[in-house]
Amino acid sequence: MTEDALIAQLRARLAGVPDARLVLGIGDDAAAWQPSRSNRSVITTDALVEGVHFRRAAMPAAAIGHRALAANLSDLAAMGARPVLATIAAGLPPEVGPDWLPACYDGVAALAARTGCAIAGGDITRGPVAFLAIAAVGEVRASNLKTRAGGRAGDVLAVTGPLGASRAGLCLTLERPELGGTDPRFEAALRAFLRPEPRLREGRWLGASRHVHAMIDTSDGLSTDLARLCAAAGVAAEAGADAEAWARDGGEDFELLAAIDRRAFDHLATRFLAHTGRPLLRVGTLVAGSGVRDRDGAAVTPAGWDHLSGFA
Amino acid sequence: MTEDALIAQLRARLAGVPDARLVLGIGDDAAAWQPSRSNRSVITTDALVEGVHFRRAAMPAAAIGHRALAANLSDLAAMGARPVLATIAAGLPPEVGPDWLPACYDGVAALAARTGCAIAGGDITRGPVAFLAIAAVGEVRASNLKTRAGGRAGDVLAVTGPLGASRAGLCLTLERPELGGTDPRFEAALRAFLRPEPRLREGRWLGASRHVHAMIDTSDGLSTDLARLCAAAGVAAEAGADAEAWARDGGEDFELLAAIDRRAFDHLATRFLAHTGRPLLRVGTLVAGSGVRDRDGAAVTPAGWDHLSGFA
Repeated sequence: MTEDALIAQLRARLAGVPDARLVLGIGDDAAAWQPSRSNRSVITTDALVEGVHFRRAAMPAAAIGHRALAANLSDLAAMGARPVLATIAAGLPPEVGPDWLPACYDGVAALAARTGCAIAGGDITRGPVAFLAIAAVGEVRASNLKTRAGGRAGDVLAVTGPLGASRAGLCLTLERPELGGTDPRFEAALRAFLRPEPRLREGRWLGASRHVHAMIDTSDGLSTDLARLCAAAGVAAEAGADAEAWARDGGEDFELLAAIDRRAFDHLATRFLAHTGRPLLRVGTLVAGSGVRDRDGAAVTPAGWDHLSGFA
Repeated sequence: MTEDALIAQLRARLAGVPDARLVLGIGDDAAAWQPSRSNRSVITTDALVEGVHFRRAAMPAAAIGHRALAANLSDLAAMGARPVLATIAAGLPPEVGPDWLPACYDGVAALAARTGCAIAGGDITRGPVAFLAIAAVGEVRASNLKTRAGGRAGDVLAVTGPLGASRAGLCLTLERPELGGTDPRFEAALRAFLRPEPRLREGRWLGASRHVHAMIDTSDGLSTDLARLCAAAGVAAEAGADAEAWARDGGEDFELLAAIDRRAFDHLATRFLAHTGRPLLRVGTLVAGSGVRDRDGAAVTPAGWDHLSGFA
C-alpha cells in the first residue's frame, strides 16, 4: 500500500468528524483554520508508544487511538478549554498490517466526533515500533484559562472522579484477561482503561468558576501531579486519608485535580454534581510550605508515572 | 535523571528562543497564545524516526533537532505562512545518554530563534527508538494562503533553489565520510543535508503574489510532490529537461515548488532574486490532462520518498 492510498483510507474513517472549523483540511502541506477572535488558543502534545504505553496484542487498535487522543484532550480540559483540532503523527513497523492504523483511526474518530475535535492532518512514517504522537489545539476565554500555578494555602483539593480504575483495568487486562466480561464489577475498570474519558465538560465548567484557582490532570498519578501543582504555586499539600496509595500513584486516569476556594467548595460541589452528574471528591488541602504530606504529617514521595524512570 | 529534571535542562537550552507570543509557555498541561485577529492559523506535523530518517551515530544531535523543526517549518512556508510556535514529542531509548536530547534542542533552538518560532511545550517518553514528532503552528493573511490545488494549465513550474543537494550530502555522510571537510565543493551538500533551510522568507514572498497559483514543498522528492500538485488541481505537468532524475526523486530538500502565471513569471523571478537572493528555477509547465510527463512525452512515475514503501 502506498502512503497516498493509506491516507485516503484514513480520511474515509474520519468522515463523521466535524470539520466546519477548518478552512483547509487534510491533504495539503498544512491545514488552516480561523481561530475565534475572542478566545485564547491552547496547544498540547502527547505520544503513545508501543511497548511503553500499549501492546498491540493486548489492546484493540481503536482503544489505542481513543487513548492517544484522550490524553491530549485531557490536557485541554485541565486548562478549561474546548477542543478545536488535532494532528496525528503515526509510526508503523513493517509487521503491522494495513488495517491497524485505520482501526486506530476509528477510535480517534469516535472520540473526535463526540467532542467536536477536527482532525486537521497527520504524518505517517515507517518505524521500528508503532507510535501515535498527537498535538491538540483548543480554545478558552481568557478569563477562564486555568493553570497549575494558582493554588493558595487553604484551598480544598478535589478530583472529578475516583482514581485507580484505569490501573485496575490494566491489571485485569494483563494479569486476569479471563475475568473481562464475566462480571459487571469489572466493566467500569475495563472501560476506564480502554476508553478513558477526558473530562472536557467538567474542565470547562470548573474553568468558568472564579473559585477554582488551579487545575491539572491526573494522568501521571495523583502523587506526581499533586506535587507539580504544589511546586507551581509554591505551596504544600496535605493529602486526606482517602487518597490511598494506589489511587495516588496509579496514573493514566484522566480525572482533573482542582484547587478550590474552601469557602465555596461545598456549594460548588453540589452544583458540579447537578451539572455534570459526577462527584467532586475531596482528596486534601493546600497548606503553606512545600511538598506533599499525608494526614499524619509524613512526606509522600511522588511515585506516579515518570516517563524516564529507569534512565541514567 | 527524572522527567522534571530533564525538562528543566531542555527549558534552559531554549532560553534564547522568542516566546513573546505565548501567554503561557512550557510547564503546564498546555501552552496558551493569542492568535492574530486578522490572520488564518495553519498547523502541520512531521516526525523524524531513528533508523528511518536519521542514525544517531551518523548525524549530530543538533542537526537532527534542526531537521525535525525544519521539516515542519517548510510545510508552513509552502502555505505562505510565518511560524508562531511548535510542540515537540520525543521518544528516548534507554541507551541514549542524558545529553542527547538537550543537544537536539540546541539545533531546535537555533532555528526556532532565527525564524521567530516559540517552543510551546512537549512530551518526553521512553521508547525502543529515538523519535521527534513536532507540530508547528503558523499564521498567514487569508488572501496569501496558498494551497496545492490552485495550479492551472499554462502555469510555469518553478523551484526556489537547486534540488538534490540534501541527497548528495546524505550519500557523502554515509558512503564517503572521509570527504567531509576536505573540499569546499562538498560543503554545500553537507550543509543541505545537516542544516536544510526552510524557505520561509521565500514562501511568504511568493504567498503575497497573486500570480502564484499553488505551492508545495519538495521534501518527498520533486517527482512525488509534483504529481501531488497536479492531482490536487486536476492538471498534468510537463517536466523540463533540466529536471534530472535524481533531482526529481531525491527528496528531503526543503525547496518550494510553485505554479506561477506564465505571463508574470519572468518579472516575478527577477523580483524574487532581488528580494531573496535566490533564483526561481523553471522545472516545467502545467498542461491539461493528468500525471507527469517528461519533455519527450514519456510518463514519469513518482519515485520520491514514500513513507510506506516496502509495506504490504
